[in-house]
Amino acid sequence: MNQNNRRIIHFADRAAKLETPKISAVPEGSIDFTSGYANPDELPNLSEIASRVLRDNRTEVLQYSPTLGLQDLRDWVLEYSREDGINLDSDNVIIVNGAKHGLDLVCKVFVNPGDAVVVTTPMYESAIKIFKGYEVNFIEIEQDEEGMNVPNLEELLNDLQKQGRQAPKIIYDVSDFHNPSGITMSRRRREHLIDVATRHGIIITEDSPYRRIRFEGRDVPPIKSFDSAGCVIGLGTFSKIVSPGLRVGWVTASAEIIKKMAMLKSDMGSCPLTQRIIYEYCRDGYLPGHVETIKRVTRQHRDLMVKGVHKHLPGSSFRIPRGGYYLWIKLPERVDSDEFLEISHRYKVAYHSGSSYYATKGSMNYIRLSYSYSDLKDIEEGMARLGSAFQE
Amino acid sequence: MNQNNRRIIHFADRAAKLETPKISAVPEGSIDFTSGYANPDELPNLSEIASRVLRDNRTEVLQYSPTLGLQDLRDWVLEYSREDGINLDSDNVIIVNGAKHGLDLVCKVFVNPGDAVVVTTPMYESAIKIFKGYEVNFIEIEQDEEGMNVPNLEELLNDLQKQGRQAPKIIYDVSDFHNPSGITMSRRRREHLIDVATRHGIIITEDSPYRRIRFEGRDVPPIKSFDSAGCVIGLGTFSKIVSPGLRVGWVTASAEIIKKMAMLKSDMGSCPLTQRIIYEYCRDGYLPGHVETIKRVTRQHRDLMVKGVHKHLPGSSFRIPRGGYYLWIKLPERVDSDEFLEISHRYKVAYHSGSSYYATKGSMNYIRLSYSYSDLKDIEEGMARLGSAFQE
Repeated sequence: MNQNNRRIIHFADRAAKLETPKISAVPEGSIDFTSGYANPDELPNLSEIASRVLRDNRTEVLQYSPTLGLQDLRDWVLEYSREDGINLDSDNVIIVNGAKHGLDLVCKVFVNPGDAVVVTTPMYESAIKIFKGYEVNFIEIEQDEEGMNVPNLEELLNDLQKQGRQAPKIIYDVSDFHNPSGITMSRRRREHLIDVATRHGIIITEDSPYRRIRFEGRDVPPIKSFDSAGCVIGLGTFSKIVSPGLRVGWVTASAEIIKKMAMLKSDMGSCPLTQRIIYEYCRDGYLPGHVETIKRVTRQHRDLMVKGVHKHLPGSSFRIPRGGYYLWIKLPERVDSDEFLEISHRYKVAYHSGSSYYATKGSMNYIRLSYSYSDLKDIEEGMARLGSAFQE
Repeated sequence: MNQNNRRIIHFADRAAKLETPKISAVPEGSIDFTSGYANPDELPNLSEIASRVLRDNRTEVLQYSPTLGLQDLRDWVLEYSREDGINLDSDNVIIVNGAKHGLDLVCKVFVNPGDAVVVTTPMYESAIKIFKGYEVNFIEIEQDEEGMNVPNLEELLNDLQKQGRQAPKIIYDVSDFHNPSGITMSRRRREHLIDVATRHGIIITEDSPYRRIRFEGRDVPPIKSFDSAGCVIGLGTFSKIVSPGLRVGWVTASAEIIKKMAMLKSDMGSCPLTQRIIYEYCRDGYLPGHVETIKRVTRQHRDLMVKGVHKHLPGSSFRIPRGGYYLWIKLPERVDSDEFLEISHRYKVAYHSGSSYYATKGSMNYIRLSYSYSDLKDIEEGMARLGSAFQE
């Protein structure tokens, strides 16, 4: 069945364009700083809840769910949003299979091939893939200490307007503990961004998986909390606060947008079993304590990894993130991060080369280390291995 | 947050084109012949399995799954396919969130806006929506007792070729117990279809959710079992044999196609918890007995509903399906099925108007009744209500 018949297979442009990843596979026995996995020791105990809902709610959790998701969980999202100063109605929420599925629906609803989207440089790797699947043109805006450089964006948009060119469709950003850079956008930038987006008629998509994983400092209100024009779409997820595997997230937006999303979400509803399990876990009051534990443990991980970088990667520079999962490390100019990753694989430590975090072309000497998954022992050992690779 | 700002919201073409459904909502207390829900009394007992895997496989089922799905479940799909005479390797299988997600991925991999796809008339409603989301042009082929009229399709494709026009990208069909028509494609048509598709360089997508729900007669080998050129993509699902809500299905195709699908499936893998629950349910040997029960019960439902049509819908005609979930009923010519549905809602019985089962425009006097969900008492009562609506 493995025959390839070139006469038969005519891929769509979006599929034909895909490049085979050039990085070798992670060798077995490697210490894993790659993805935003949960710390295995801190995964929640959902065994009893699952058993209960499959007994007591069988006809709900094993049949198709409503397209918008279980009402209980949608109500919970309203409450969660209120804690952040975002006031929504029930018709502003749809449950999806994780925030990535939410972003896919944003694209389905807004993006024609060739439309422009504004992104940060660097930016979240999976979002690049999703946007490329919709054949967007990227407009890349750099970040500084305050996040996306909105003044630069404004200038660019004004130029486009003067030239009579179409405004971008979407501005996409991870506003809290940005993936990969770790930067949290300042309040004045958020307000400025809303202002710019509203004036130019652009939808902001605020992806905020790490917001609750703050180790120090004070919360900045979400961009969506400043949104009086209905121009912000919020993407939320349980991946970092309950479990990444359950694939449950949500989208918040104006009722008009949610309605279109529901019509284009042709999956007969997301899985009601995982929705119900998560809802009952939250309803039963486990979430705040669990999030505290994650924060405490992940902070220790961050601290140890920061020490490791100082010790083992001389000449590199980075920002200490005040939350989230990642260190975004600038290696000395002469280092090519793809080559360095290949060497690191030989030393059995795995992470992501920064090269995959640029929508078009970016710096070649950044790496992203995730400190969420590995335990303290492995972080210590993994950083030492990284040091050995760096020596080479 | 409900403000609509027309200046900001510029939907993509696929979203702008969506029409608001014109049928009124199903009134409360209605008897439900609408969707392919499972019979609630026959939902499997998964409580213990879920509890066990969340205890013993916690780090697997709560983390991200591999993009291709759990290896155990993929191996199970190989075995399931072998029972149907389809021999596959592991790299021919990807696990997805139900067959609809599979079809979405087929479109992502193959369809550029404006590409043609061949479908039956009538055809599966959700597939219409998914294809429309990719802005396809529909080529509609009628069915007869043997299924899709492949000789007509061949003629049409030859004409296109003579005119030097591009061949369609995909031929889509539900080969076993077609939704909504209930027809199973004959063996000679399947072989003919493979031949035509191969010669014209077109991918066949064989969607087969009802194959195991056969009440009588002998299985016809799947189209994919005749596929020596690698031109058939199979869509499978656990929705009709285990549970629709768990949203687990699979795609089988050549390794080259599966690879592209994996690259465009940017969701960090489907939910490993539901994959593991289903796998263990199958591995522990529950499936054959469960499918037997579903067949026995669903057959009783079909028989009673067939009687009901004879009794309560005089002047209508239909085919008795030998499996699957639906009766596709032709009402007398003068009846408009959308109007009839509105009247039926007043009598508190709900089903689907045939009008939603045509990709472009079709007959206006068909309805689809699902006999899977309601129990015998409700089928009896629902058909009587339908009769009263029909009298009116």
